[in-house]
Amino acid sequence: MAVRDVKAGFRNEEGIGTVLGILKQSFGERFQTGQSFREQHAHTTTYLPAQLPDGVVFVESAEDVKAVVKTCAAHRVPVIPFGVGSSLEGQVNAPSGGISIDFSRMNRVLRVSPADLDVTVEPGITREELNRELRDTGLFFPIDPGANATIGGMVATRASGTNAVRYGTMKDNVLSLTVVAADGEEIRTARRARKSSAGYDLTRLFVGSEGTLGVITSITLRLQGIPEKIGGGVCAFPSVAAACDAVIMTIQMGIPVARIELLDEVQMRACNAYSKLSYPEKPTLFLEFHGTEETVALQSAQFSEIAAECGGDEFRWTANAEERAKLWNARHNAYWASRALAPELDGLSTDVCVPISRLAECVAETQADITEQGLLAPIVGHAGDGNFHVLVLFDGKDPTSVAKVEGFIERLNRRALAMDGTCTGEHGIGQGKMAFLEEELGGAVDLMRSIKKSLDPDNIFNPGKIFHAGK
Amino acid sequence: MAVRDVKAGFRNEEGIGTVLGILKQSFGERFQTGQSFREQHAHTTTYLPAQLPDGVVFVESAEDVKAVVKTCAAHRVPVIPFGVGSSLEGQVNAPSGGISIDFSRMNRVLRVSPADLDVTVEPGITREELNRELRDTGLFFPIDPGANATIGGMVATRASGTNAVRYGTMKDNVLSLTVVAADGEEIRTARRARKSSAGYDLTRLFVGSEGTLGVITSITLRLQGIPEKIGGGVCAFPSVAAACDAVIMTIQMGIPVARIELLDEVQMRACNAYSKLSYPEKPTLFLEFHGTEETVALQSAQFSEIAAECGGDEFRWTANAEERAKLWNARHNAYWASRALAPELDGLSTDVCVPISRLAECVAETQADITEQGLLAPIVGHAGDGNFHVLVLFDGKDPTSVAKVEGFIERLNRRALAMDGTCTGEHGIGQGKMAFLEEELGGAVDLMRSIKKSLDPDNIFNPGKIFHAGK
Repeated sequence: MAVRDVKAGFRNEEGIGTVLGILKQSFGERFQTGQSFREQHAHTTTYLPAQLPDGVVFVESAEDVKAVVKTCAAHRVPVIPFGVGSSLEGQVNAPSGGISIDFSRMNRVLRVSPADLDVTVEPGITREELNRELRDTGLFFPIDPGANATIGGMVATRASGTNAVRYGTMKDNVLSLTVVAADGEEIRTARRARKSSAGYDLTRLFVGSEGTLGVITSITLRLQGIPEKIGGGVCAFPSVAAACDAVIMTIQMGIPVARIELLDEVQMRACNAYSKLSYPEKPTLFLEFHGTEETVALQSAQFSEIAAECGGDEFRWTANAEERAKLWNARHNAYWASRALAPELDGLSTDVCVPISRLAECVAETQADITEQGLLAPIVGHAGDGNFHVLVLFDGKDPTSVAKVEGFIERLNRRALAMDGTCTGEHGIGQGKMAFLEEELGGAVDLMRSIKKSLDPDNIFNPGKIFHAGK
Repeated sequence: MAVRDVKAGFRNEEGIGTVLGILKQSFGERFQTGQSFREQHAHTTTYLPAQLPDGVVFVESAEDVKAVVKTCAAHRVPVIPFGVGSSLEGQVNAPSGGISIDFSRMNRVLRVSPADLDVTVEPGITREELNRELRDTGLFFPIDPGANATIGGMVATRASGTNAVRYGTMKDNVLSLTVVAADGEEIRTARRARKSSAGYDLTRLFVGSEGTLGVITSITLRLQGIPEKIGGGVCAFPSVAAACDAVIMTIQMGIPVARIELLDEVQMRACNAYSKLSYPEKPTLFLEFHGTEETVALQSAQFSEIAAECGGDEFRWTANAEERAKLWNARHNAYWASRALAPELDGLSTDVCVPISRLAECVAETQADITEQGLLAPIVGHAGDGNFHVLVLFDGKDPTSVAKVEGFIERLNRRALAMDGTCTGEHGIGQGKMAFLEEELGGAVDLMRSIKKSLDPDNIFNPGKIFHAGK
C-alpha cells in the first residue's frame, strides 16, 4: 500500500472536450478552466498528490446542478462535488478528470422551523455560517469536525468530530436530502417528519457516499437548543489506560458529556510549547458539559469522582465562558501545535475507530509503534466514540520517510481492524483508504459496488473513490 | 385504494414444488407444510387477508439460512423471514407463495460487552427476552414498539415506539448486521466501532428494508444503562392543540423526556371504561423521565411549568415505581381498552408521522373526519416524534363499513403527506401502504427499485412488499 501514490483513471478525452465547450457556452464566466482554478479544486488538505479536474463550474441553483449532470451524463464525463476542500482522503481529486462542481454560491438557508428544530440549507453553506444565521433562533447545529467544512461536504463524508459523543454524527442529524441522480433529475430522499418507516433509508445511503451516487442539492438538518450553560474541564491521568477507563465509566454511567477528548503526552508537550502553557505532559482528557447551571455542576461533580477513582489528577473545571476558553485552548490549537513541532515537515492526518473497550490498547500499541519507528506523531482522540487521530509529521520529499509512514499507516489500520474497529471513524475512504475498506468489509463491498452500478451505471459520480467500480 | 384487497403475485409452481422436496429432505421435521403451520405464519396482527407461504422452515443457524436461500435462489422461489408476526402492514404475507423462515429457534444472545454498551443477538430473540437476559449487566435495550416483537422484525421494519423521543428508532440503535445475500453468502455490514465513515451505510439500508434485500442472521445493538430513577406523570389539557404546544416546548427546552404520549378524549373514555378509572376525558399527556433522583425531579418540575403555561391541569407525577405503574396503566392498556369499546368489531391500527409543528392540526382534522364519518377510532400518539396511531374499529364483513375505513385511511395519509409528513412513522409499508409510498417519495421509489434489482435480481426476497419490483 503506497499512501502517496494515487492512480490515474481512464480519461474520456472526447467527452471531456465536448463537455468543456457546452459548459463554457451555458455558464460563461461561471465556468472556469484556468490552471489556478483547477488547482484550487484539487490541491486541498489531503496528503495525496493533486489530480486536477478539467474545469470548475460555480453553480447557483439545483437547476444548474441538473444541467451540469445532464451534460456530463450524456458524454460520460466525471462530476466531482466540491465544498471547501477540507476532506482528508483525496475525495475531491479527479483521477479521471472531469468537472468540479463548486458549491460556494449555493450557500443559503432555505427555511428554518424553530418549532420542529429543523432547517433546510443548500450544500455550500459552512457550519460556522449556518450557526451564525441560526443565532437568533436559540438553536444551533452541533456537529463540529474541526474544519469549517460545508454542510454538503459533511454529509458526503459522514463527518462527526468532537461532540458526536453527545449529538451523534451526520447520519443522526440529517432528516432529508434532495439529490440529482444520474438521469439529471432531482429526487427527495424523505419527508420532514422526525422519523419514518417508509421504504429504504435513502437519506442514510447518501450520507457518507462521498459524491459517488449523486449530487446533493439541499439538506434538511435536525437542530439543537443552545445550551443554557456550558461547562468545561481538564484532567491529567497517569496513563492512556487510566484515561480510557474514566471515559468508559462516564459513558456507562450515562453522564451526557458533550465532548470528551483525549490528548496523549506528545500532543500535550506540543500544546505547552505552542501556547506557552504548563500542563502536565501526561495523557489528558478535555471535557465539555451542556445543560443548565445545575446539571452542568452535577455532571462535573460526577466526573470528578470517576477521575479520582481512575487515578487522575484533580479535575479542574469551570462554567465561566472565558475561563473555559482558556482551559480548552490547548485542545483547540492541537493541530497547529503539532505542526509547530516540526514546521519544515509535511503532516498526514489519519483516523481509525475501535470499540471503546479496546481504545487504550489501540492507542498504547500505536504509541509503541511510533516510538519504535522514531516517528513524530501526536495523538488526539474523540475518546467517547473510540475514535482517534494521528498526525504524522514526515518529509514528503524523502522516500525513506514516506516509506516509514506508509508502513505505520498500514499497521495502524490493521490494528484497528483486528480489534473489530473501522479504518475510518470520520474522514471517509476517498482514495487513501480503499485497500483497508476491502479488508474491513470484504463481500459487503461487492454489495456497495452493485448499488453504485445500479444508481450510476456509467460511473460518472466521483469515480475512483471508496472502491474501484469495476473490481 | 382498497385496504383490504391484496393482490396475489406470480407463483412459480415448478420451482416451489422442487424446493418443497429439497427442504423436506434437508430439514426433516424442521420443515413443515401443514395448513396450520402455514396459517400461523401468515395470519397475523395485520388487517390484511392472509396469503399463506407454501412451507415453513425452522432455522437454527446462519448455515441453515444460507442453505435455504441458496435452494430458493436456485429455483427462484420467494423467501419470507418471520419473527413473531406482529407486523401490521402484511409484511409476512406470501403473495407469490414461497418459504417462510421462522426464527424462533435462532434467539440466542451471542455476546455482550458492558464496557462498549453493545450486544450481538440472533434475529429471533424478542425484546423482552433480550432485556431479561441483560438484567444482570445493568444495561437494557430501550426500543419498545408495544408488541413483544423479535429484534429481527424490529430491524426489518425500522421499529420505534414510545421512547424513540429519547433513544431514537432502530436506525439509531443498530451498530452492525450480518445478512445472507441473494448468492446465499453471508456479509457483514459494519464492524463494531460506535461510528464509521467506511463506505456506504449498508446497516441503515437493511434497517427498514422489510426482508426485501436479504435475510438478517445477526444483529449488534447499542445498549443503554438502566436509569437509576424513573419518574412518570399524567396531565390533561383543554385541547389537542394545548397538549401539542406543551410537547413542542418540552422538546425545544431540551428536557430529555423518555416518553411523551398523547391520548385523545375518545381514547381516555375507552381507558376509563376498560380499567375503571376516572381520568378527565380530555386530551392527556403521559410522560416518563429517566435519570437520577435529582434530574427526574428537575425534569418533572420543568414540565409542570410548561403544562401550566399551556393551560393544562395539574401535572401529577411520581418517582415511586408502583404509583407510576398505576398512573401509566391507562396508557399501557390503551389498545385493549379501545378494542373493548366494540368487541364485536375488527380493529385496524394505522400510523402516520408529521413535523411536530403540524401534529395538533393533523390530529384535529383527523378527529373531525372520524366524527363526520361516524367512525369509532381512538388516537394515541408518540407526540414527541409527531407520530400517531389511529385504531379504527369496523366490521370487516360489511362492505359499507370497509369502504368507509378505506376512504378514511386514504384521507389520513394524504393529510399527513400534505403536511410534509410520512405515510408511516413506524409500521412500515408492507403491502398496505405501497400506494402512499409512491405519493410520498415519487422518483425516489425508482432508486429503491434499482437498488432492489441490483441486490436481488430474481426478486426472491419478500416479493410484493414496499413497492412492485417491476413497475
